[in-house]
Amino acid sequence: MTIRIDGDRLLGDLYALRKIGEYKTGVHRPTYSPEDVQSRHWLVARMSDAGLEPEIDGIGNVIGRARGAGRKLLLGSHLETQPHAGWLDGALGVIYGLEAARALGGGIDVAAWADEEGHFGSFIGSRSFCGLLPEAEIDTCHSREGTPLRDALAHAGFAGRPRATIDPARYLGYLEAHIEQGAELEDTGKRIGIVTAIVGSHRFRIVFQGVQNHAGTTRMAIRKDAGVALVRLASAIYDRFPQVAGPRTVWTTGRIGLDPGAPSIVPGSAEMLFQFRDTDPSVLAKLDRELDSLVAEANSGPCKVTIVERGQSTPQAMDPGFQDALERAAQKHAASLHVRMPSGAGHDAQILAERTKSAMLFVPSIGGISHHYAENTKDDDIVLGCRVFAEAAADLLAQ
Amino acid sequence: MTIRIDGDRLLGDLYALRKIGEYKTGVHRPTYSPEDVQSRHWLVARMSDAGLEPEIDGIGNVIGRARGAGRKLLLGSHLETQPHAGWLDGALGVIYGLEAARALGGGIDVAAWADEEGHFGSFIGSRSFCGLLPEAEIDTCHSREGTPLRDALAHAGFAGRPRATIDPARYLGYLEAHIEQGAELEDTGKRIGIVTAIVGSHRFRIVFQGVQNHAGTTRMAIRKDAGVALVRLASAIYDRFPQVAGPRTVWTTGRIGLDPGAPSIVPGSAEMLFQFRDTDPSVLAKLDRELDSLVAEANSGPCKVTIVERGQSTPQAMDPGFQDALERAAQKHAASLHVRMPSGAGHDAQILAERTKSAMLFVPSIGGISHHYAENTKDDDIVLGCRVFAEAAADLLAQ
Repeated sequence: MTIRIDGDRLLGDLYALRKIGEYKTGVHRPTYSPEDVQSRHWLVARMSDAGLEPEIDGIGNVIGRARGAGRKLLLGSHLETQPHAGWLDGALGVIYGLEAARALGGGIDVAAWADEEGHFGSFIGSRSFCGLLPEAEIDTCHSREGTPLRDALAHAGFAGRPRATIDPARYLGYLEAHIEQGAELEDTGKRIGIVTAIVGSHRFRIVFQGVQNHAGTTRMAIRKDAGVALVRLASAIYDRFPQVAGPRTVWTTGRIGLDPGAPSIVPGSAEMLFQFRDTDPSVLAKLDRELDSLVAEANSGPCKVTIVERGQSTPQAMDPGFQDALERAAQKHAASLHVRMPSGAGHDAQILAERTKSAMLFVPSIGGISHHYAENTKDDDIVLGCRVFAEAAADLLAQ
Repeated sequence: MTIRIDGDRLLGDLYALRKIGEYKTGVHRPTYSPEDVQSRHWLVARMSDAGLEPEIDGIGNVIGRARGAGRKLLLGSHLETQPHAGWLDGALGVIYGLEAARALGGGIDVAAWADEEGHFGSFIGSRSFCGLLPEAEIDTCHSREGTPLRDALAHAGFAGRPRATIDPARYLGYLEAHIEQGAELEDTGKRIGIVTAIVGSHRFRIVFQGVQNHAGTTRMAIRKDAGVALVRLASAIYDRFPQVAGPRTVWTTGRIGLDPGAPSIVPGSAEMLFQFRDTDPSVLAKLDRELDSLVAEANSGPCKVTIVERGQSTPQAMDPGFQDALERAAQKHAASLHVRMPSGAGHDAQILAERTKSAMLFVPSIGGISHHYAENTKDDDIVLGCRVFAEAAADLLAQ
């Protein structure tokens, strides 16, 4: 059996979706923005055209259910984007699901999970579907600009609707396709990535408390410069982490703030956002201990250094049988140009994996660029990825 | 001859001035704000009461001229404050001048220079008076909020007035009193500081250009993380500067920014504001070379590091004869509790010194605190400082 997807129809849908919130060569479609809401209604219409039974639920998830009896495969990703970001991040996986549903003619449910990009919270759409998002948490979620999630849902027209939740008995499992968002496929000449596991991330807000003072009149010897304490800790992390990390561990200081941030004032306090990621829980635990001991050492200096917030997600292995199905399909359509690899980014599949067998397929990102309007993937790679994805779905449904 | 200042009158004026823009125990009186303008008109009235001939000129300088022939001493400081800052920074020196004029009964001009605190530019009031502020520069100055200086002057009611400029033949010289803004007097049990020189400061904006990327999918080996480059340079500065600096050099990183500043994005660019200060031009030159070579070394890493802006002020020695006059007065009223010391902060005296003999007197700052509403000086120290200041002025006038 070979599944025949329609490459032109696939690309046509992706191009049409790109028009909703178009920004330069990318898209600006934050969760629950008018453009995001428009894209969800657009998807509902496409699902109806494809013979699915669509709904938008009380958190904004768009779910198109296949008619008829029998266990189904659930395929999906997300529609909203990061600010002024790319046209494929999320959209690709949703339209792959839609095209697979059309190509297979049955057995496929398609989903677009709300807010994978975290404008209002962490994976609120897929967590809601998996029964992992309490009402009380919805009450506390808000955007970076301070808009409460409840207000955004009301404004979008989704408030008061029931929230859809998974019926595990309905599903054989979940498959998600996504752009790689890194350069490994491109750098190694591969066209398909089969995800082995999604990394866990440990995230920290570290605060440095010193004494604010005049940058001209305060002698170096008596300063308690919170900025110096921060620079010293950050530098120590970059010295010591390579000795403790695994071969694929990544760590990042994404934000640094000095207070008050004036050129002639010795900073009285400072803050950094730091994170590291790995698929191996024992590596994550080792790095936790390393960071704690670096913070303890930093406290022997003149400033008080405190980890004031910790957040973490657990590494999530993908289902081995589903990986094998993806690999068989890749081998059929892409010869040897496929590779098993971890995902360094988080995806809805890590949430779905809590409730059903899950796996992911990657297509190459040109230059490894993502979360930027220049994000792109070759048309040929887009079409090939969907062919492999639909083939694997058919394979799994046939088992 | 002993000059008798009126301590209650002095403190009464300082307390009255503190009410204009009062904030907690301090003052919020940014340049050309309604409160700042009110304080200038208040000072005009006090100058008239003291028998001076006051004017507010086209840049906002308040100048009260003594009547009669003969060479004068010019005494002054500034009225505006940093945001939500202290009640004495600037105000003390202005009211010292006023009180000295009243106590001496003649020979004293009093000035409040506009915007020493740099809300719109660098020493624009004293530079205007010294003929060092071209009209073209006024056209380009604006506040941090973007208000053009021209608009602020018009709003304050000062636009279209002539700008007063110094007649060097009129003056024996310039004296300025100020709070120390540091803790050296307090720490050493001294009550009067006689300023030997005002430091020069060299100021830098350093930009780091890397490549923005996803913090989960971009392997450490291929990153061009601008934040890491910044942390590494800042750390290297703190390692190497102590070996090159003089005993009183100070250096400060006051602001750090990573772009885009999101927790899950490898910063593509970064920026730091760095400065150092010393009274010795050869030390400043040595530190310039050291910074340049650290930046050159930093460019061997994966990011491009560039000093994109340099600003500097020249160290300014205070007049030795004027220092001696201050010391004689201090010895008379404060026994041995005085000390010669450099000023680590910039002051209008460094501008006036370009045109006339200039010197400065410091009084202690409690806890060394300044640019904060908690800034304070003991009443006894305020009164003693004014006694010494007026005595020195009388001494210089009598010579």
